[in-house]
Amino acid sequence: MDFNILADQYRKELFENILPFWLNNSQDKQFGGYFSCLDREGHVYDTDKFIWLQGREVWLFAMMYNNVEPNPEWLQCAVQGGEFLKRFGHDGSFNWYFSLTQDGRPLIEPYNIFSYTFAAMAFGQLYKATGNGEYADIAKKTFDLILSKTDNPKGKWNKTVPGTRDLKNFALPMILCNLALEIEHLLPEDLMHSIIESCIHEVMDVFYRPELGLIVENVLVGTEGLSDSFDGRVINPGHAIEAMWFIMDLGVRLHRPELVEKAAQIAVQMVEFGWDEQYGGIFYYRDRDGHPTQQLEWDQKLWWVHIETLITMIKGYQLTGSQACLDWFEKVHTYTWSHFKDNEFPEWFGYLNRRGEVLLPLKGGKWKGCFHVPRGLYQCWNTIEKCAEKNNTIYSTLYSV
Amino acid sequence: MDFNILADQYRKELFENILPFWLNNSQDKQFGGYFSCLDREGHVYDTDKFIWLQGREVWLFAMMYNNVEPNPEWLQCAVQGGEFLKRFGHDGSFNWYFSLTQDGRPLIEPYNIFSYTFAAMAFGQLYKATGNGEYADIAKKTFDLILSKTDNPKGKWNKTVPGTRDLKNFALPMILCNLALEIEHLLPEDLMHSIIESCIHEVMDVFYRPELGLIVENVLVGTEGLSDSFDGRVINPGHAIEAMWFIMDLGVRLHRPELVEKAAQIAVQMVEFGWDEQYGGIFYYRDRDGHPTQQLEWDQKLWWVHIETLITMIKGYQLTGSQACLDWFEKVHTYTWSHFKDNEFPEWFGYLNRRGEVLLPLKGGKWKGCFHVPRGLYQCWNTIEKCAEKNNTIYSTLYSV
Repeated sequence: MDFNILADQYRKELFENILPFWLNNSQDKQFGGYFSCLDREGHVYDTDKFIWLQGREVWLFAMMYNNVEPNPEWLQCAVQGGEFLKRFGHDGSFNWYFSLTQDGRPLIEPYNIFSYTFAAMAFGQLYKATGNGEYADIAKKTFDLILSKTDNPKGKWNKTVPGTRDLKNFALPMILCNLALEIEHLLPEDLMHSIIESCIHEVMDVFYRPELGLIVENVLVGTEGLSDSFDGRVINPGHAIEAMWFIMDLGVRLHRPELVEKAAQIAVQMVEFGWDEQYGGIFYYRDRDGHPTQQLEWDQKLWWVHIETLITMIKGYQLTGSQACLDWFEKVHTYTWSHFKDNEFPEWFGYLNRRGEVLLPLKGGKWKGCFHVPRGLYQCWNTIEKCAEKNNTIYSTLYSV
Repeated sequence: MDFNILADQYRKELFENILPFWLNNSQDKQFGGYFSCLDREGHVYDTDKFIWLQGREVWLFAMMYNNVEPNPEWLQCAVQGGEFLKRFGHDGSFNWYFSLTQDGRPLIEPYNIFSYTFAAMAFGQLYKATGNGEYADIAKKTFDLILSKTDNPKGKWNKTVPGTRDLKNFALPMILCNLALEIEHLLPEDLMHSIIESCIHEVMDVFYRPELGLIVENVLVGTEGLSDSFDGRVINPGHAIEAMWFIMDLGVRLHRPELVEKAAQIAVQMVEFGWDEQYGGIFYYRDRDGHPTQQLEWDQKLWWVHIETLITMIKGYQLTGSQACLDWFEKVHTYTWSHFKDNEFPEWFGYLNRRGEVLLPLKGGKWKGCFHVPRGLYQCWNTIEKCAEKNNTIYSTLYSV
C-alpha cells in the first residue's frame, strides 16, 4: 500500500469531485441555505430543508476554510447557510426545528436533539472562520440547551411511558465526544473537561460491554444493565465504529494512548461483528442475539457506515500501528470505492442493498448531505499523509543506517 | 382455474397450518394476552405485547367463532386476550397504549390511533361472540374516542408544525371503512350512515386522484390538493388495494354496484403501478414521480401487501366478473404461495427482499401477528367458494339447456 498515492486519491476525490458537486448543486441562490435532495446527476428533486443537513454543510465548508485553505468561495457558502439557519432554523430561542420549507417556514417541531448538535457544530466553526461573536453566542446558547436536554432529549415528544423500561441511548454521548472538541474554544475549560470525561465514561464503560465485546445502542437507566428488548438488543456497527475515532481524537488531545489503543481494539471487534461474509460490506443493524431486528433495512450497506469505518481504521493504524486496523482499512477501502463511488456522475451513492447494488440512486436526501463523504475524504487524506510521512522517516532511517 | 380445488387450498391452510400455529405458540398462559414475536419455528424471541396485534388476534379468533363455527377453543383464546387488553391495554379511560411488557406494564404511550381501531374491532367481535355488554361498552367508548381524534390522531405527539403544510393521511378513513361494518351492530344507524358516506367520499374522491389513476397516502388539508413532498408523493400500493376490498364490502352492503366496479378498477390500476416487472411481487412503496422514496424498505415484498391483494382481486372478480381481477389474482396467488409460504415450518414468512428471498425469518414480530394471513385465507376461501357456486350454476344451466 503506497500511502503517497493513496493520500492523493482521497484528496483529489474531495477537491475535484465532491466539493464542486455541493458548491454547484446544493446552494439555494433564491432563499439561502442548501438543497440536500439531489438526484444522481445533481438535480434538485425535493426542496425541503433538513436542519441536520443545513448545519452539517455550514460546518463542512467552514471547517475546510479553517483547516485547509482560506478559500473565499467556501467561506461564502458556509456564511450564507449560517445566515439562513440563524434566521429560520429555530423558534427564536434556539430550539432547532427538524425541517423547513424551501423559504424557511417550519415544518417539523424541534423534537430532535441532533438538530441542536449539528447547529452547535456549524456555528462553532463559523465563529472560527469569521470571528463574528454572534455565531459564538449561538453555538454557546445551543450547547447549553443540549446539556439541559440530556436526560430527556425528545422532551414532550417522547412516547416512552416513564418508569417501565427507561433506556438511555448511545447517540448523544457519542456525538458529544465529537462536539466537545469542536467547540472547545468557546467554553470554560473545567466544563469541557467534565463533559469530556463523562462522555468517555459513557461510551467506553457503559455502552461498551466487555461481556459481549460490543457497543450496544441502548442500556437501562439506573442499573446501566442490558435490556432484552428490540431496542436493547440492536447493534449499529457503523455508529459504534464512528464513535471510536471520536474517542481516538480525544485520546490524542488528552495524551492518553491507552484510550486510543482500546478504541482501536473495540473498532476491530465491531467491524468483525458487522461484516457481511457473504456479500461483503458492513450491515446497517444486527441483533446481538441473532434475532430478527425491527429495522427492515438491517442488511443494507450505507455510505456513512463505510466511510466512518475508513476514518477509524486508518487512524487506528496511524496512532497504534495495529495491523488489524490496516487490514480492515484495505478491505473496506476496496469495497467502498468499488461500490459507493459513481463512475459516471459526481458524488457517491448512499444506499446499496445487501448485494451492493444501488437501492436508491440519490446523491443526497433527507439524511445524506454534504457531510460524511467530504469529512471522510478529508480525514483519511490527512491521516494517510501522516502514515506516508512516517514511512518516509522509516525509509530515511533505513538509508542513513 | 378450478375454484373448488382452490377454495380447499385456502381453507386447509387456514385450519391445518395457520390457526394451530397461533393457538399453540402465541398464547401467554402465565400473564394472558399473546406473544407476537415468534421465530421461524414458533418460539418466542421477544415478550413485548403490541396493542395492534393483541387487538387483531382477539378479533380474528372471535370472528372465526362468530362466522365459521362455535369452536370453544377459539372463543377461549379470544376471551383471554380480550381480558388482558381490558385490564392492561389502556390508561383507564380507553386511551390505548402502543405496547406493554409481558406482564402488562405500559411501555409506549397512546400516540397511535390504530391501537384504538384494532381494540374497537376486537371488542365489537367479542361482544358478538359472548353477548357480554361490557365488551360492547368498551368498543363504543373506544369508537367515540377515535371519532374525537380524527383531526389530529397523534394528539400531543404530533411533530408537525401546524399551518405550514397540513396533511391528512389515508390510513384513518381507510380503516374506518372496515371498522364501520365491524361495529355496525353497536351504533345508531344514522351515525353509521354518515360515517360510511364520509369515508367512502374521502377514499374514492379525495385520496383517489383520477389525474394520476392512483390513490395517494397524503393530501393537503383544506384544498385537498396534492403535495409535492416526500409524504405527498409516496404511494403504498398494498394499502390502497386493501382499501378497495373494504369499499367493495361497503358497496355490497349499500347495494351500490357502481362503487364495487370503481373499486375493482382502481385496484387493478394500483397493482399495475405496484408490480415489480423485474423480480415479480408488489413493491412496498413507490414515489409517484419516480423520485427516491424516504422509505429505505421501498423495494421489499411484504406478506400483507400480497394477501390483501389476493382478497381484493378475487372479490373484484366474484362481484364484477372482471377478467383483469382474475388474471391478477392468479399472478399474485402464484407469487404469494411460492414465496411467502414456508414449506418446512408453519405460518408464512413476512418480509422478503426485492428478489423474493427471505429478509427476516420471523413468523411474527412487532407488526406481523395473527391477522393478515388467517383473515386473508378466510376471505379468499369464502369468496372462491362463491365463485365455485357460480360456476356450478353456469354448468347446470348449460346442461339444462
